[in-house]
Amino acid sequence: MSNSNVSIPQGTRDFGPTESFRRTYIFDTLRNLFKLYGYAPLETPSMENLSTLTGKYGEEGDQLIYKILNSGDFMSKVDPTTRTQISSKSIIPLISERALRYDLTVPFARYVAMNHQDIKYPFKRYQIQPVWRADRPQKGRYREFYQCDVDLVGSSSLLNEADLIQIYIRAFISLGIKDFTIRVNNRKLLLGMAELTSKPEDFMSMVISIDKLDKIGEEGVQKELREKGFKEEDLEVLSPFFRLEGSSEQKLEFIREKLFHTEQGKLGILEMQELWSLLRYSPQFSSYINLDILLARGLNYYTGTIMEVLSPHAKGSLGGGGRYDDLTGIFGLKGITGVGISFGADRIYDLMKDMDLFPKEPVSTQVFIGNFYPEAQQKAYETSIWIRELGISTEIYPDLTKLPKQLKYAAQREIPWVILLGEEEFLDGTYSLKDMNKGEQKRMDLEGLKKFLTENLVR
Amino acid sequence: MSNSNVSIPQGTRDFGPTESFRRTYIFDTLRNLFKLYGYAPLETPSMENLSTLTGKYGEEGDQLIYKILNSGDFMSKVDPTTRTQISSKSIIPLISERALRYDLTVPFARYVAMNHQDIKYPFKRYQIQPVWRADRPQKGRYREFYQCDVDLVGSSSLLNEADLIQIYIRAFISLGIKDFTIRVNNRKLLLGMAELTSKPEDFMSMVISIDKLDKIGEEGVQKELREKGFKEEDLEVLSPFFRLEGSSEQKLEFIREKLFHTEQGKLGILEMQELWSLLRYSPQFSSYINLDILLARGLNYYTGTIMEVLSPHAKGSLGGGGRYDDLTGIFGLKGITGVGISFGADRIYDLMKDMDLFPKEPVSTQVFIGNFYPEAQQKAYETSIWIRELGISTEIYPDLTKLPKQLKYAAQREIPWVILLGEEEFLDGTYSLKDMNKGEQKRMDLEGLKKFLTENLVR
Repeated sequence: MSNSNVSIPQGTRDFGPTESFRRTYIFDTLRNLFKLYGYAPLETPSMENLSTLTGKYGEEGDQLIYKILNSGDFMSKVDPTTRTQISSKSIIPLISERALRYDLTVPFARYVAMNHQDIKYPFKRYQIQPVWRADRPQKGRYREFYQCDVDLVGSSSLLNEADLIQIYIRAFISLGIKDFTIRVNNRKLLLGMAELTSKPEDFMSMVISIDKLDKIGEEGVQKELREKGFKEEDLEVLSPFFRLEGSSEQKLEFIREKLFHTEQGKLGILEMQELWSLLRYSPQFSSYINLDILLARGLNYYTGTIMEVLSPHAKGSLGGGGRYDDLTGIFGLKGITGVGISFGADRIYDLMKDMDLFPKEPVSTQVFIGNFYPEAQQKAYETSIWIRELGISTEIYPDLTKLPKQLKYAAQREIPWVILLGEEEFLDGTYSLKDMNKGEQKRMDLEGLKKFLTENLVR
Repeated sequence: MSNSNVSIPQGTRDFGPTESFRRTYIFDTLRNLFKLYGYAPLETPSMENLSTLTGKYGEEGDQLIYKILNSGDFMSKVDPTTRTQISSKSIIPLISERALRYDLTVPFARYVAMNHQDIKYPFKRYQIQPVWRADRPQKGRYREFYQCDVDLVGSSSLLNEADLIQIYIRAFISLGIKDFTIRVNNRKLLLGMAELTSKPEDFMSMVISIDKLDKIGEEGVQKELREKGFKEEDLEVLSPFFRLEGSSEQKLEFIREKLFHTEQGKLGILEMQELWSLLRYSPQFSSYINLDILLARGLNYYTGTIMEVLSPHAKGSLGGGGRYDDLTGIFGLKGITGVGISFGADRIYDLMKDMDLFPKEPVSTQVFIGNFYPEAQQKAYETSIWIRELGISTEIYPDLTKLPKQLKYAAQREIPWVILLGEEEFLDGTYSLKDMNKGEQKRMDLEGLKKFLTENLVR
């Protein structure tokens, strides 16, 4: 019966009841946590002016931005004499003024630049909204997906980094993901490492190679560095950093020994020490944090602390973030420093689903009322009204049909309690309550039913 | 400092912290209520295939759909020889395959048609998502706005209408909007009225005129009906319906007298009577419902019950809905009957703001910790950690700056409690707690502070 010609665009998804409930569960958990730390919500429009987005994500990014066709007679803006030759790229600015949000960072920067006069700094915001990318769809990569960002701008204090690390830890614990690590680094430590080599100016190039350690191994990295002109003594100096083991404190001790005399390294060490001391109050927190001097993560953007969340149960990171120094420069507002983290909502969802971490409680209705004996329909309906007044989610089968069909429906919907009002019950003023999990059924009067529901179902 | 060149597209909005909190408050209230009635969430992608949307909203609607430019070299699909002449309308299908959701009804119908095999009927879903329309922006009309729909498909029982009316009533009461009316009608009653005239086949035309009663008055309606060829005796027969007053029961009595002998009118009366008797259990509900035989509301779509929510505090309706008989026919799946209501989220927001109905409690942080005495910074930070562990939203001023600046910030953010750890407090192990509303300040030790916060702030 269903029409196979109907479809949704590639790379997009419908979220049915169970998925929606679960996504709401994740987002509600995060929202409550953000609020606990004084972060307030921000929502920006799905569409931004195309000029706001263009040029912010590199050449490749520009191509992945979804552009919206101008409405009305948009072709009238395209000179007919040039049309035959015009390229797709050149026609875009003529026929499109708006585009879909590509991430939450640029809209946030745009919001701060636009509202700078009214914002009270430090400005703490979180944002949970979908973004769109005209990417090639593949497993786990979608064209519409939610991002969840938490940022603070207008303060360079490390207390903010400490708060965000706490948020990460409490978030994953609250969601039931106990097995995760927050890798923490500081760009200044990487700069200090570069200072140890003969080519500190090739910092970026060095980091790009180091960042591949997981993929190509130490030998691979050394080969690359050699090809880039780093000397054997540079490789020797860097080598111990590749093999750093032990606790974060032990690593920090080693790094202190090696980098405290470098200009940037010293700054990085002081920041790292302060951050660690802020977090020492909660020993349970420290056990989730791991100093990782090789963590690089979008270095063009980050200027201080860098973080990433990994779990052995997930491919790729569950989140990441760091300190940046110039959020709004692209919009003409200089000197706005900040720090932020983001949560990989889809990866978190997938991991929680794989590990069966979503709450077991009925996601939807708790009580189902059968509707199969015509004389009792009005009473059955009134029963649904008073049960809901107890705050218990309830539905009544709307159509008078055979009981087995209704019980099948209740079972498929995984509704745990069913109330039956047949002829017998109707005549003697009782209710049969069926426990769908145990298969047991009990008769009780109105008072008995109210008492049972109140004691067992009201939370 | 802020850059006035930065802007957002006309007809779109940023929602800052307060607005976002309030919108979340509305949506959470509604979601909890929908769940209480066994409705489950559905989310569909923001973009649908253009072919899914085109032709569903009339010629004018088609023009208001936001089309998304294909990515890549989209112009290669446009034959260079035709380009000079091609109209905007003709080029759209060549360069755009996707479009933004225009409402929630068509995506819902598409979802049902696509997933018909797997859906357990009756299927109860709610959907709260933004939609986009390339409409001319004006006060209260936006190009991006949220819709909130609640529908049930696969059952023709009036129990569903009764549930949805209850949802409406409880929703507005929960939101604090006590002054509202739910106008209820049934298309079959209007059909019955048409049967009384000499031109029952001109039903639609008659209803279109009747629907203007509020705007052009009874005389205006009569003039229009005359021009459409209705006879004087038709106008006489219809006239009493224009002036129907009294309780819904009294109106129903009158309608019964006038229409029970008509084919469609009889069906409408029986439905209306059943609906009223289902709702009689809760007298407080009936007081919000008002039978209005002239309510028309998108008759092309609705086939039975029609509803609309009005409040004297709002221009236009706060919501509306009704029974329809062919949701998915446009997608090749016949015979799917259903009933649904929608909430006008923006109007509800505006009304609640105007009437000051949002909760007074601090929307964000409850406790602010000053950070102005360097030696106490670590202790202040640790204080933020244990207060949050009580479940109290807390922030610490991240930067060591002068106290007055911090107090001003706390006041601007409307944070009600401030904890101060200055030299004196630090040395004798106490905390000063300032009540920002009363301006009072008290010194207490750790135990005293914990006790106070637990007793006064934990909910």
